[in-house]
Formats: sequence, structure tokens, C-alpha cells
Amino acid sequence: MATAATLDAVVRAAGPQLGSLMERVEARLAALATGYGPLLSHHAGETIAAGGKRLRPLLVLLAAGDPPEEAADRLLRSAVAVELIHSASLVHDDVLDRAPTRRGQPTVFAAAGRTAATATGDLLFSRAFAELAAGGEADDVRALSAASSALAQGELMQREDAWDVAVPLARYLQRCELKTGALFEAACRLGALAGGGPADALAAFGRAIGLAFQLLDDVLDVSGPASRTGKARGTDLLDGTVTLPLIVARERDPQLAATDLRALRSGAETEAICDRIAATGALADAKARALTVVADAKSALPSSLPPAQRATLELVADGVVERYA
Amino acid sequence: MATAATLDAVVRAAGPQLGSLMERVEARLAALATGYGPLLSHHAGETIAAGGKRLRPLLVLLAAGDPPEEAADRLLRSAVAVELIHSASLVHDDVLDRAPTRRGQPTVFAAAGRTAATATGDLLFSRAFAELAAGGEADDVRALSAASSALAQGELMQREDAWDVAVPLARYLQRCELKTGALFEAACRLGALAGGGPADALAAFGRAIGLAFQLLDDVLDVSGPASRTGKARGTDLLDGTVTLPLIVARERDPQLAATDLRALRSGAETEAICDRIAATGALADAKARALTVVADAKSALPSSLPPAQRATLELVADGVVERYA
Repeated sequence: MATAATLDAVVRAAGPQLGSLMERVEARLAALATGYGPLLSHHAGETIAAGGKRLRPLLVLLAAGDPPEEAADRLLRSAVAVELIHSASLVHDDVLDRAPTRRGQPTVFAAAGRTAATATGDLLFSRAFAELAAGGEADDVRALSAASSALAQGELMQREDAWDVAVPLARYLQRCELKTGALFEAACRLGALAGGGPADALAAFGRAIGLAFQLLDDVLDVSGPASRTGKARGTDLLDGTVTLPLIVARERDPQLAATDLRALRSGAETEAICDRIAATGALADAKARALTVVADAKSALPSSLPPAQRATLELVADGVVERYA
Repeated sequence: MATAATLDAVVRAAGPQLGSLMERVEARLAALATGYGPLLSHHAGETIAAGGKRLRPLLVLLAAGDPPEEAADRLLRSAVAVELIHSASLVHDDVLDRAPTRRGQPTVFAAAGRTAATATGDLLFSRAFAELAAGGEADDVRALSAASSALAQGELMQREDAWDVAVPLARYLQRCELKTGALFEAACRLGALAGGGPADALAAFGRAIGLAFQLLDDVLDVSGPASRTGKARGTDLLDGTVTLPLIVARERDPQLAATDLRALRSGAETEAICDRIAATGALADAKARALTVVADAKSALPSSLPPAQRATLELVADGVVERYA
């Protein structure tokens, strides 16, 4: 949810070294996109080189603080690996959602079909581990494999919970930590491992930011507007994915608690459910929960961190919630 | 293609230590199948615990020779990781092929749908790397990530070549090495790394056996009978996958060279193409190529290998071709 402008501000605030590392991350991603034959460069090239906000690589670098020069290669590998896992999961998600576009571009699924898209995702997963394996740091591979396992478990859990309007809040939150928190956690842990900082504390910060990111994304799905999110309001609901706004709203509106999401047939019906959720005040409460998570994560940052590093980490945390200000 | 009976014979020939290691591999796979929540144990439990021939784990152990006791854990991790990558690729293949059954059981795709099956495959991939990461051997992670990258590249290549009756032989062979040879290669390399044997030579042996395995599998697709293969004759052709029998036969029968596979509408039409391929003698030639690959691989085994290890590796190689004797 962080805007590119905020993240650019973070990069500027953190100084020229970070900017130059981010450029090296981009260059490495571009090289990977073109280094595996015309098919991968055609499909994945657009996915990994064209963009996104690079929030996860940025977290890797920021969690490293002011790392020694000899840590730069390890850091780059970690930043690239985390972004590749993220790209792989997007490519697979688009297959599952039969999504026609992402970030305004045709998805790999739409351009090349599900076989090529599934294989492209698998290849991106594999390349992520290959990046870390080349560095030979077992702790790094461990952190990444934990995150990629969590991502898949989160997907499985979401599938299991589909259409269940009564899904418990705790289970929803656990799913968000698996689906989104775990990779943010790995990003911060990887940075801390390379930079020599407090790995567990920074990992916990990452997990919290990732959770907040997901909560706010789920609010946006209901609040819209479509012009801002790039997708129709209530897309999650239409897919049977019950998220925080409905979980909060169902306690206040018995009719929402009795909704049969499978019966939603049209965009208009789905919009009506979104309006009904909003009318309970659930969106503001869901946002408030995300903001609390972020505030707690900021205040839990260890006091041993250099002030400059703490300041940039706080800036990124603010960036995550900024669109909701 | 090796039968379970041959592989049992290999295990017996190799002695009690191998049998006990294979039992530990099974136990670890079973533990993984049940250790990630009810959904994974439900889906992947059947895929990874129910079985298959365990040819790849067996190759890991045999390539290790007579390893020191302290190498047992590393060896087990490698054997399990290789089988998990194989299982992951089967689960994803079944999604892509919309396959209802595998080994007589419903596929994850058929039982749980494509979302759960795609996530299950991703989770198996991730767990494979987690197994190796726990051991902390960077060379092992490197070998596995090279293989899993190759698998995905092979899938992409197969997709690109779909329906192309004129696909060059060299390209087909490269595809087989990527799709199948690379994981056999990794199995042997991982075993050699743990056991201290000649890794490159054993890796080359594995790659060749994997290539032969794929060539013979492709022959079986055309030769059938379905009662032996568990699938209709010509399934690959119907999917647009051009393999060695047709590549050989098209040089001898111009009508085959002009076949439009997209026009195949029925099982009877596909069987007629299979018969036409067989009538050129292409099946015998394709088998002969596979047998030559295996024979060359056996004779290229380094003379430095202990005779007992060489003998069991040769037995496995024979097992791969046995069904065609």
C-alpha cells in the first residue's frame, strides 16, 4: 500500500548508499529476467523487471542498517531472492484468479496461459533459492524457505476458509501473517543477518508491517474506489475470501452474518454488501487495528538500533499506512 | 519405468544399511506429510506418503556409496528433498493436465481443486529447500535449486514447443534433460556430495539415466498398452507434446510429418497415429537410443568406484530399462 513516492523519500532519506544498492537490485533482477531464454524473459521479464514498489527488497536493505562493504553481495542476493519469491507468488496467484492484468500489464497467465504461467512461477521460486544458494549462507536459505512455506500454507488456509462468513478473527489474522507477514519477516531477518543487527527483533517488525499491509489491503478491497485500487470493489468477497471488514461488520449487522457469498451474482450485489459493511463502521475499525499494529511495531524496535536506521524503518512503516491517512 | 520389484532387488543387493536408510526416508516423508496442518496432510499426504517407486531417493543413497555414519543425516535430507521436488512437480503437472488420477488415486487437483493443488505444490517445493537448509550445506542447496530451475525451464520449453511436429531432435533431447535428467543428476550429485564420491561423474550418470527414463516413458505413451501405462495411448500427442517416436517416424512417413495434432479429436484418431508411428519402426529405434544412453552411462562410471557401488548403480540403470526388455 506504500506509494512509490514515499518509498523514494525513504531511499533519499537513507542516503546514497541505499540508492545505489537498490539500483544494483534492479540490475540483477533485470539480468535474471533475461538470462533464462526467450520464454522466461518474455513472461517473467515483464513481471520482475517492470516493477512494483520493491518494498520487500527495500526492507532487506533497511534492516541491514549501515552494513560493512563486504556484506553488500549477500545483501543483494537476499533482496533479489525476496522479490523473486514475491513475483513467483503473484504469477501463481494470477493463474488461480484467472487475472487478466496486474499493474496495468497483461498477466503471464493472460499472455501465455496457465501452463507457462505455472512454470514461470516455479522457475522464479527456484531462482530465488539459487540466488541464496550461491552465497552459501544456510541461515539465509532457512529464512527464505520458512517464508515460502508460509506463503503456500497461507494460500491453502485461505482456500480452506473460502465462503466461510463465520471464520474466526484469530484464524484470519494467522492467515494474513502466513500469506503476507512471513515474507516481510524474512526480508527483515535477511537484512539483519547480513548487516549483523538484531535479527529476531527486526524480523518481528517485518512480520507486523506485513500484517498491517495485508489488513489495509483487505480494507481497500471493500472501500475502493476502483479507480484507486485498480480492481472492482468486493473482489475478495466475490472469490469467497472473508476478510477483516466483514469479520468486524458481521458482529454488528446480523444480515451480514447470514450472507451467502456464493449467491453473489453481480458487481452491483457485491457493491451493496460493501456498502453495508461500510455502514457498520467496520472499515474505520479495521484501519485502526492496522494502525495500532504499525505503531506497536515501531515502538518495539530495539533501542540499540542506530537512530538513522530506526528513522528509515519508521518511515517505511508510515509508508505502508500512508494511503489511508 | 523401473519396476518396484527391481528396485527392491537393488535395495536387497545393496545390503541392510540401504534398506534402513530407505525406511528412514519413508518415515521422514510421512512426518512431513502430517506436519503441516490437516489440509496439507490431506492433500500432500496421499501424494508423498502413498508413494511411487522412490527412484530418486534411491539414487541419492546409491550415489553416496558406503557413506560414513555422520553423513547419514545429510543423506536423508537430500533424499527427502529430491522426492519432495519430484512430488511438487507431479502435483503441478496434474493441475496443468487436469488429471483425475495418478497411481490409481485421485490427484490433489481432482480432490481439492486447482488452488489447493497449486499451493500444495508450492509448499512441497518450499519444504524441499527447507529440508536442505536445515542441514546448512550450500553445495546441496545449489544442486537442488539448479534442478528445480531446470524442471521449470523444461516445462516452459515444452509449452513453447507444443503442437510443433517439426521440433528439432536436439531441442527435444534438451527438454528431456531439463524436465527429467536434471533431477536425476541432482539426486546423484547430492549423494556423491554427502558420501565424498566423484560428484561430477555421478551427476553425469544420473543425468543420462534420467534422459533414458524420459525417452522410454515417451515410447510407452505411443506403444501402450493402456493396461500397462495406466493412460490412453497417445496422451502426449493429444496434448500437443511431440516426442521421440514421432520425431523419428516423421522422417520415414511424410504423412506423419504433415500431421496437425490440433485436429486430433478422438481416442480412435490418436490411436491411429500411434499405429502409424509404430509401423515406421520408430519405437524400436527410440528404445535403442535409450538403451545406448544407459549403456554409455554405465560404462562411463569411474573405475575408482568401489565394485559394490558400481554394481548397484548398474542394477538401477538396468531397472530403468527393464520394462522394455
